[in-house]
Amino acid sequence: MIVKSLLDVQREKVSMDGAEKAFKQIPISKEDGTPNYSMRVFTLKSGGYTPYHQHDYEHVNYIISGNGELVDETGNKKTLKEGDFALVMPNEKHQYRNTSDSEDFVMICGVPKSFE
Amino acid sequence: MIVKSLLDVQREKVSMDGAEKAFKQIPISKEDGTPNYSMRVFTLKSGGYTPYHQHDYEHVNYIISGNGELVDETGNKKTLKEGDFALVMPNEKHQYRNTSDSEDFVMICGVPKSFE
Repeated sequence: MIVKSLLDVQREKVSMDGAEKAFKQIPISKEDGTPNYSMRVFTLKSGGYTPYHQHDYEHVNYIISGNGELVDETGNKKTLKEGDFALVMPNEKHQYRNTSDSEDFVMICGVPKSFE
Repeated sequence: MIVKSLLDVQREKVSMDGAEKAFKQIPISKEDGTPNYSMRVFTLKSGGYTPYHQHDYEHVNYIISGNGELVDETGNKKTLKEGDFALVMPNEKHQYRNTSDSEDFVMICGVPKSFE
C-alpha cells in the first residue's frame, strides 16, 4: 500500500490546446501500480479552465476546494463547490472553469488508468 | 452529467462485522450509471474503524478531513491526514482507523463498481 500527500506530488502545467491556467498532478497513477483507475488532481488558477472537449471515457470528480462550474454540451453550467461530486459520462462534451476572482479551484478527476 | 453535494447523499451505518462507528455513502454509484468505478465515502467517528480484512479488489483513497491511520497486513500503521491519497492493492490486508479524540475522519474510497 502507498500513502502520499498531494503536496508531495509533482505538478505540471496543462499544455493541451484550450486549457488556460490549468495544472495537473497524478497522485494515484499507473506508475504506482493502480489496477484499474487513476486519480488526477487539476488546479485551475483564477480565470483558468480546461478544454471544452469530449472523449470516450468518463470523469469522476470530487471538488477539494474553491468554486467553479461544469459546462455541459449545450453550454449550460452547473455550479461546483467544495464537497461536490460530479460524473461526466463518456462522449459528453464538458469543460471545468474556475469562477473565483482570487482562489484556486482544485478537484480530483478519476479516469481509467489507460487515459491518465 | 451529474453534480451532487456529499451533504445530499444518504448515509448508512456500516453493519459489517469488525466495523465500529463507521458510516457509508456512495456519491458516485452504479445507480448513477458510473461506467467503471464507484466513489464511496466513509465517515469514522472518534474511536471508529473499518474491518481489518482483505479482498481481491483495490481501494483508492483521498482523505477529505480528519486524522487517522491505515493498518497494513503486518500491523504497521501509516498516518492519514487531510489531503493524503492512499492505494491499497488487491489482497492486501488493511484497516482504516480514526485517531482523533474529537473529529470525524472522512475519506473517499474508490472501488470497481461491481464491489461498491
